[in-house]
Amino acid sequence: MSRINRQWRLTRRPEGAIQDGDLELVETPLSDDVPDGHVLIRTVYLSLDPTNRIWMSDRDQYLPPVEVGAVMRGSSIGVVEVSRDARLAPGTLVAPGLGGWQDYDIVLGKQVRPLPAIPGVPATAYLSALGSTGLTAYFGMLEIGAPKEGETVVVSAAAGAVGSVASQLAKLKGARVIGIAGGRDKCRWLTDELGLDGAIDYKHDDVGAALDRLCPNGIDVNFENVGGPIMDAVLARMNNFARMPLCGLISGYNADGPTPGPKDFSLLLMRRIRVQGFIVLDYLSRAGPAQRELAQWVGEGKIKYKVHVEQGLENAVSALRRLFTGEHDGKLLVQVSPES
Amino acid sequence: MSRINRQWRLTRRPEGAIQDGDLELVETPLSDDVPDGHVLIRTVYLSLDPTNRIWMSDRDQYLPPVEVGAVMRGSSIGVVEVSRDARLAPGTLVAPGLGGWQDYDIVLGKQVRPLPAIPGVPATAYLSALGSTGLTAYFGMLEIGAPKEGETVVVSAAAGAVGSVASQLAKLKGARVIGIAGGRDKCRWLTDELGLDGAIDYKHDDVGAALDRLCPNGIDVNFENVGGPIMDAVLARMNNFARMPLCGLISGYNADGPTPGPKDFSLLLMRRIRVQGFIVLDYLSRAGPAQRELAQWVGEGKIKYKVHVEQGLENAVSALRRLFTGEHDGKLLVQVSPES
Repeated sequence: MSRINRQWRLTRRPEGAIQDGDLELVETPLSDDVPDGHVLIRTVYLSLDPTNRIWMSDRDQYLPPVEVGAVMRGSSIGVVEVSRDARLAPGTLVAPGLGGWQDYDIVLGKQVRPLPAIPGVPATAYLSALGSTGLTAYFGMLEIGAPKEGETVVVSAAAGAVGSVASQLAKLKGARVIGIAGGRDKCRWLTDELGLDGAIDYKHDDVGAALDRLCPNGIDVNFENVGGPIMDAVLARMNNFARMPLCGLISGYNADGPTPGPKDFSLLLMRRIRVQGFIVLDYLSRAGPAQRELAQWVGEGKIKYKVHVEQGLENAVSALRRLFTGEHDGKLLVQVSPES
Repeated sequence: MSRINRQWRLTRRPEGAIQDGDLELVETPLSDDVPDGHVLIRTVYLSLDPTNRIWMSDRDQYLPPVEVGAVMRGSSIGVVEVSRDARLAPGTLVAPGLGGWQDYDIVLGKQVRPLPAIPGVPATAYLSALGSTGLTAYFGMLEIGAPKEGETVVVSAAAGAVGSVASQLAKLKGARVIGIAGGRDKCRWLTDELGLDGAIDYKHDDVGAALDRLCPNGIDVNFENVGGPIMDAVLARMNNFARMPLCGLISGYNADGPTPGPKDFSLLLMRRIRVQGFIVLDYLSRAGPAQRELAQWVGEGKIKYKVHVEQGLENAVSALRRLFTGEHDGKLLVQVSPES
């Protein structure tokens, strides 16, 4: 038996926002002939993340860029359909690593991680609050930001997949938390549903004036996802000995040139601020305990999350574009095939 | 009896490089009538530091700016001439804090620190290798940079008072150390006298190409004193998990606008770099043990330093200008009066 495997391949490096034709959907036959020790996985959910855009470019980055002509890289979860690894029975829900934007993939069984079956936890949680976005928030906020009770924390892109978890983790530690997001609805979700102490709609509010009002004691932790003028506005209000986990700089991912640093770098010096770039891949050896702690908080309702599921692999590119315009609501996934 | 006290007062905030007339030398009478618990100190050496220029401006900074009309702030050492504090006998050599650019000062005895008398250690060492510049190098390099044996360390302004000590401390820890300085003589001093593994003359060399040649394994620690294009060249070659103690940004101190951050801030993210601004004042409670360790290394000849002494309080302003052009050789001091 053979299957038709649809693959999104990178045809050229996007300039600026992703355009039609930067990727193409190609159909290739895939044989059932799986090598010993390998498994054939059917993709169920594909995770769309800001870092996908980085991987498409040849800028300096933490993994090699996706090569032109290659299948687009991406996180996913899938179901084992054919197994030649005794530990992985067909039907098992697994995280296959960075397999990519395709219907099927054949990978070494030992590179594949079966997902724990936790009652009440849907599969999509493993690509959101309990997945790499949740873990990014966990390590970035708790280990680098390390807010203390009563400190003030600002999170940019606070309604995003990482930012929303990071914001709630800071609340769990007793901090005053202010989120920055685009749009009234997102801001309302942050304050009314997630319990943040304030939210700033950067599309309509004067961010600096709002920070002055909402952070009367200055800012101790800036969980930075965005860069640019929003970062500058936060930085200008950071306290002595403040921490800035640098998680993302999405404002620059579609730009051709490099993403510039703060307008006033001397603030880091004068206020003894620590900026620490980080990537969740560095923490994978400690993912297990963190994931269990997150799962408990999700189960107790202390961490809420939203998942926005688009249907169909064919819509992956158009869905990814929404990440950069904010026209999505929660962690953005593409459902490629049914869960069972 | 009364003395004539000459004081450099700030008459206006400099724009760009310090101009004649930005400060004026004023003579005022000073009475011997010292209040109880106070001491009258005769200034012996005045320390000239890049941070003096920061204090003259009203930019955001770590201490309040010097007010227009006030005596210019500065580190110094002096001799107690009149004492109404039983612990401080006349003739004692002391560090009076940030008393300033004047012949005499009357201060509370408990704010004054007598200098330890270490055989073979000249008084000027307490304003250089064993003073706040040495301590800045000590905490910035050893605690924030924390180079490991075999790592590569780059120090900008490496022939300066802080940079030269920082470079030697990294050598003591077994690192490969490359210094960046302005001029062939300074570079020769770094390699031939201080034992650095390489030196780059930014006034004549292509800094990027030289870094490529001298740092074949990339850069693990960047002890940053300068900012601007030199910082960008170093940053572009920093390794994953590198550290950047941010000690100074002298390239921007004479500028009117803010000092911009790195041209490519995303490098911090992609390479998980830590930037930590610091000020030596935060470490004063731990200065004693650090100073003793530095004194031992100085005594053993493991840390060498140079002092450049200009004579006469009246020359303080012209001397300070040299800090920004590099026309000095070692820690820049002004001798205001004889040591004894």
